[in-house]
This record gives sequence, structure tokens and C-alpha cells, in this order.
Amino acid sequence: MLVKDYMTKHPLMVQPTISVVEAQRYMGENNIRHLPIVGKGKRLLGLVTRQTLLVHPATLGSLNVWEITRFLSDLTIGDVMVKAKDVITIEKDATIEEAARIMVEKKIGCLPVLEEGVVVGVITEIDLLAELMEMMATRVSGVRVTVRMPDQRGELAKLVSAISAQGWGILACGGVPSPKDPGKWDAVVKIRDVPKEEIVAALEKVEGQEIVDVREI
Amino acid sequence: MLVKDYMTKHPLMVQPTISVVEAQRYMGENNIRHLPIVGKGKRLLGLVTRQTLLVHPATLGSLNVWEITRFLSDLTIGDVMVKAKDVITIEKDATIEEAARIMVEKKIGCLPVLEEGVVVGVITEIDLLAELMEMMATRVSGVRVTVRMPDQRGELAKLVSAISAQGWGILACGGVPSPKDPGKWDAVVKIRDVPKEEIVAALEKVEGQEIVDVREI
Amino acid sequence: MLVKDYMTKHPLMVQPTISVVEAQRYMGENNIRHLPIVGKGKRLLGLVTRQTLLVHPATLGSLNVWEITRFLSDLTIGDVMVKAKDVITIEKDATIEEAARIMVEKKIGCLPVLEEGVVVGVITEIDLLAELMEMMATRVSGVRVTVRMPDQRGELAKLVSAISAQGWGILACGGVPSPKDPGKWDAVVKIRDVPKEEIVAALEKVEGQEIVDVREI
Amino acid sequence: MLVKDYMTKHPLMVQPTISVVEAQRYMGENNIRHLPIVGKGKRLLGLVTRQTLLVHPATLGSLNVWEITRFLSDLTIGDVMVKAKDVITIEKDATIEEAARIMVEKKIGCLPVLEEGVVVGVITEIDLLAELMEMMATRVSGVRVTVRMPDQRGELAKLVSAISAQGWGILACGGVPSPKDPGKWDAVVKIRDVPKEEIVAALEKVEGQEIVDVREI
Repeated sequence: MLVKDYMTKHPLMVQPTISVVEAQRYMGENNIRHLPIVGKGKRLLGLVTRQTLLVHPATLGSLNVWEITRFLSDLTIGDVMVKAKDVITIEKDATIEEAARIMVEKKIGCLPVLEEGVVVGVITEIDLLAELMEMMATRVSGVRVTVRMPDQRGELAKLVSAISAQGWGILACGGVPSPKDPGKWDAVVKIRDVPKEEIVAALEKVEGQEIVDVREI
Repeated sequence: MLVKDYMTKHPLMVQPTISVVEAQRYMGENNIRHLPIVGKGKRLLGLVTRQTLLVHPATLGSLNVWEITRFLSDLTIGDVMVKAKDVITIEKDATIEEAARIMVEKKIGCLPVLEEGVVVGVITEIDLLAELMEMMATRVSGVRVTVRMPDQRGELAKLVSAISAQGWGILACGGVPSPKDPGKWDAVVKIRDVPKEEIVAALEKVEGQEIVDVREI
Repeated sequence: MLVKDYMTKHPLMVQPTISVVEAQRYMGENNIRHLPIVGKGKRLLGLVTRQTLLVHPATLGSLNVWEITRFLSDLTIGDVMVKAKDVITIEKDATIEEAARIMVEKKIGCLPVLEEGVVVGVITEIDLLAELMEMMATRVSGVRVTVRMPDQRGELAKLVSAISAQGWGILACGGVPSPKDPGKWDAVVKIRDVPKEEIVAALEKVEGQEIVDVREI
Repeated sequence: MLVKDYMTKHPLMVQPTISVVEAQRYMGENNIRHLPIVGKGKRLLGLVTRQTLLVHPATLGSLNVWEITRFLSDLTIGDVMVKAKDVITIEKDATIEEAARIMVEKKIGCLPVLEEGVVVGVITEIDLLAELMEMMATRVSGVRVTVRMPDQRGELAKLVSAISAQGWGILACGGVPSPKDPGKWDAVVKIRDVPKEEIVAALEKVEGQEIVDVREI
């Protein structure tokens, strides 16, 4: 679960000399929201996002629509991009949770991915959500059970062993500190090919743990 | 791990009668990218995003800057919002992976959260990434190990039991089909307060499984 | 033929605090191209023309349409007007040819008319053209004759006397240095209620002068 | 005093295929407000004025500044010009007062001048004001006298003869129905190289006429 496994490889990139108008069309036609700007050898020079394109301040010499049009149609992407020194990037060997942390803390939706200074990909919020979906085996049918357990050593093993003891396969397994109950941990497991009732019956017997949600998905 | 646990409760919402100019300022000042539009009793009437505000087509009677200004300053948010029937929403009891799935498939970044037709929150990409971070215990120091195992019943239990047999606590646990090796599953576990070397030594002994990545975080 | 006779009295004027958007609408609805800005006691503070409204430079903090709209809708006419010290004005007792001279030399289409510093009117190109039409009796039918004569004393009197000797009335009379023939002067006279042939016959007899154009209008 | 004598010959003209942005720059750099659009053989296809460029309605697919820029920068002058069938023109042999009449009645500031369907010039308000200045001998020093006389036959001849009898030259001569006194006619004459007092003394003796304004200019 590393950035290089979930990033978009060979992302669309442009030179700083193309016009903003062209870049904006290019992004629209390819339905992309982030565009790395690169120089020789794919060295990162800057980044533009759809949002960037709108926050660039402008000193207009006139309020004549046609002069504004001329001014804007002459702007290049190099004029408006966020310069490389201000672009937050990530290395291709970083973990996906590190990418998530940066996006959450900086409130940004895309990171250019570098390897020795060269752009080798981009990773976006959507890529990370796709990873989250895989962790939760979202596209596979099964029974999803949330079990609340004390936040202490050995509890997850108890749960996993109980499932394994039945010979059942675990499609997905994850957990977070309980949002409802401090000191507890909510584990989610997803089990395939077993009726819901049997699963509930088995897991109810795990000592010190409580089923808080069950659903067939 | 349900939507209601990770959504923003009591989100900022506005009436359809306010001007777009006001709404845009309000979004900017509060640094929000999505704004539910509600009527009486917080019934959802529509949604605007920063992007929505820019894709609304306009028929201008003139290219005079001041007439354009007047036209635009007279537009209300009700004129430009995506109408409720076209807004994709989610119920507060849905799972977070369902929210992720919708966002990935529809390429959207925000879902209004409903309970009996009333807006009770919004959930965004950022909220889901925060959840992903928690699942991976991102903010807690420990050793993060990725173990590649056959995608078959009992494998995760073998790994969890091996850790538990050492008396070690599992901070985080998750897995995905191996992006490198079809037929395999990559599990990530995070273990606290144990030297990396000891963990590697113990997990190397788990039969049929292979450590593919170890890092202290 | 003084400015006060041809100016628009009680012209539409506004305070500097109204918004440009309002002023522009006001000008459009009243089909006016020039708007004096006045303070207490109708003292001239500035002038805006349709053209002025488009040459004002702007420093935009953003290229977001809605932020531009907010910026522009907050501008007052006082922000964009040409300040009184730079407005070319004329006194109400000046001649209309003086008004014409200023407009031609400065390439401007409107002059606020002052009396002791107070705005009492505006005079525009159109007002002067209306005066020109009256000088040429444009709206009265008659025969318009252009006579080329030496540019020397007594020539106009010869022509006028010849007409008067016939008992004919002169509707209009004017002259300019001949555009075709340096050293000559082209006089135009307009005579009512006389057949063209009779006029030509009479004026052909004026010594040293030549009829260069005759038309019934 | 015909249009062909006062028009701008060989005016700047463009083909309908150039972009509006280029045409607007061209007009600004050459400080012109009206631009005839011509096809093969200088046949008139349309007209644009600075004002025309601002009243063209537009249907925008988006309010994104860059998409608007692209839309506008793709517009050609042929897209926005007033089409030939709606352009008011004048023949080169028309009188200048006819040009003035059209401009006043239609509230327009420029007429393309045609000869057998081909554009041979443009005549503007400024050109007509220049002609008015010449009629009033504006740039020559002298004494300008306004004489009010009954609006009847022989009155102008009386005045002109009285001046001529003194051996004085008339620089300019014109008249309009008195704006102050219905039934009267105000004649303006300009006389060179004679002291004001002598002129007043001579003209005061003209029976039935009254000096209403005298000034040295």
C-alpha cells in the first residue's frame, strides 16, 4: 500500500510556455483537475489546478472586454502556475496513509509523485479513496460486521481467530478507535459466503467484544 | 465506520435566495468547497460547489463589463445550483466505503448526508481520507510491515496469531489484493513499542508469507 | 449662436457615491453617453462617458468570475470618473464654434457647461450638428447653390445683393475657403420658392463668381 | 460643402475574418472609433464601432474565465459587425448638412461614404464639426457680431451691404432662427482688421436690426 501502487503513472503534463486558455481546455477535455508543469527531463517546474487558474491576481489595464480577453489569452501557464518551490510533492515509495495525511492537513487534492526529482506520477484524493475501497473489499459481496472491543493487545487476534476457527475467509479487515466509545476500538471485518446469522452467532461468543453493526453488502 | 461518524455535522447551508456573489464569498471565507442549499425544515433543494459556480451557462445581453456585472450580481444561488433531483446524496447510516465508492465512480468530492430527507451533514473526500488515516493509525508511531500472503482462508489469522503470540499489540491492520502479484494479498499491520528487527524475525517465520516492506513511522 | 442656446439644460447628473453598475444602467436607459458627477450645489466633481467606464484600470485579486463581479459591483462612480481637474469644460456664454474647436482638437464628444463653477448644462457633438443643420436650413425646402468667388472683400456682398435685387429671400448663407481652389471662397446660399433655373440664370450674371453646385433640397 | 470634401479618404478598413481582439487593438492603436468591414473590391460588408463591440449578445457555455476568454478570442469581426443592410451610409456627393441630419436623427457618429457601392471614405461628427469651425472662421482673429433681424426677405442683404459699404471684408457669415425670439433671425458675421467700436457704430445704423452680441476673437 504505497504511493507508487496507486498513483496515476505517466500523467498528462505540459510545458510552461503553453497558454492558459489551451491548458484549461486540455484539462477540461481530459477531465483532469491537476496538471504538473515540467521542463527538460520531466523536472517539476510547477503545478496548476482548476482552482489555481482562478486565484491568480491580475492587473488589468482596462475594463474593456476585448482588452481583458487579449490580456488573458496572452497569459501562459508559466505565468500562473504554483512554482515548484511551493508545490507539495511526495516520493513514490511513501505510504498511501502519508499521502492521505498530507492531503488532509494541507487541504489539497493532488500530489505530484517524484523519484529523484523527476515526475513519475500524480496521486489524488480519488486514488486514495479507490485504495480505501479495496481495503474494505467494497466491490465484493459479503457480510460486513463491526465489532467493538477494548483497545488493548490481543483483542484483534481473538476476533480473527474466532473467524478462522470456523474456516471462514476474511475479505477485509480494518479498525479505528471507536468514534462513540473512548477506550474502545471498532474493527470491521468482511466475510464471504456465510449466512449473516451464523456469523453473528459465532462472533457473539467472543468474550469482551460486542457486535455493533451487521449488514449484507 | 459509518458515514454519520465521519461526516461534518451541522454544515454551513444557505437559502436559494442569496446571491451567488454572497455565496461565493461565504464559501471562500469559510474555506468550504461545497454548499447545500436548503428550504424549510432543512429539506435539500440543491447543491453548489466551487466548480458548479463556473459551469453555469449564461446568455449575456451584452459584452459591456458593467452589464455583465449587473447580470451576474443579480443571479441567485437558486439560479445556478444543481437541483436536488440531480444531487447525489447518501444516508447517514451508510458505510464509509459506500461513500468512497460513489465519489470514485461519479468523480465527485462531496455528498450531502440525509436522514429522512433532511440534511444532517456533508461528507467529503477529506473526511474519508481522515478515516483512512485512522485505519492506518497514521498519527501513532510504530513499525509498519507489509506481508504478502496467498489470497486464501486462514492466512490473515496466521499473521495476526503470530503477532499476538508475541504479546504485541496491533495498532492497525488492513489488506488489499496485491497490486504486484495476482493471487496474493498484501496485509499491512502496524505494531507499537517493538524493535523492527524483532518484528521481522518473528514474522519471517510465518509459513507461506513474505515480508515485502518494513518501515518505522 | 452661443453654447447656452444649444446646450442641454438640466442634464442628468449623479452623485459620486452611486455604483458604476447603477450609473451604467442609468446612462443606457436614458440613452446618454456622458454623465457629469456633481457634489453640493451642483459643483462639478467629475465626468464619466461610456468610454471612461471601460478604460479604468483594475487590480483584481482573482480571476474568479464571482470575485470579479463583487469587485466591480462595489466600485462607485467616484472611483472611476475623470476628476474635475482633468475635465474640459466650457462657459455658457462661449460661442458654439469655440465648443466645436475644443471637441475637434481634444477629440471629445461632450463638454459640461459651467456658470460660476456650477454645472448648468452639457453640450455635445450632436447639439453642434443640430446647430449646423439650422445654419444650413436643412429642414426647409429650397434651392441650394454653391458659388465660388475670389477670397476678397465685397464678393459676398455682390452675391447677396444680386439675390436681394430679385426680391428673393435667403434661407441660409455660409461659406468656407474652397476645398478645391486655394485663394477662392465657396459660399452656399439657400433660396426659397424660386425655380432653380431662374436662380441659376440670375447668379450666373454675378461677375467674377462661378456656380459650382446647384440642387433642390 | 459636400461630404467628399470633408470625409476621411482611404479610411482604415478590415476584412471580416480578423478576430475581434485584433480589430479592437487596431482601433485603439489608431485611435479610431469606427471601422468599415469590406470584402472584395472594397464592397461594404458591415461596420463596427467601439460601441458595437460591447452590445453584441453572447451565449456563454460557462462562467469560467478561461472558457470565456477562449470563446471571445475566437470571435471574428464578421460575427459581431452590424451587417451592411443595417448600416446607414451616405453618398460622396451628398451635402454636409445631410450628413449632419442623419447623424442627429439616428444618433450615430459615423457614416461610411459610398460611390457606386464601394467604400471611398468615412465621415464623422468630428469632420462635420471641423467644417462648422471653418464656416465660422474659428481660427482667424476678428470681431464676431450677432445681429438680430426680422425673418424676412432682404434683411441679410441690408446687413451685408452695410458692411460692404465700409469696404470691410466678411470672414464668416451664418444665421439661424433666433433661439430667443420667434419671428426673428440671428445672423453672425465675422469681420477682420476693424476695431470693434467702428463695427458696432456702423451696424447700429442698420434699420430694424439689433446687435445682440459682439466679441473679439
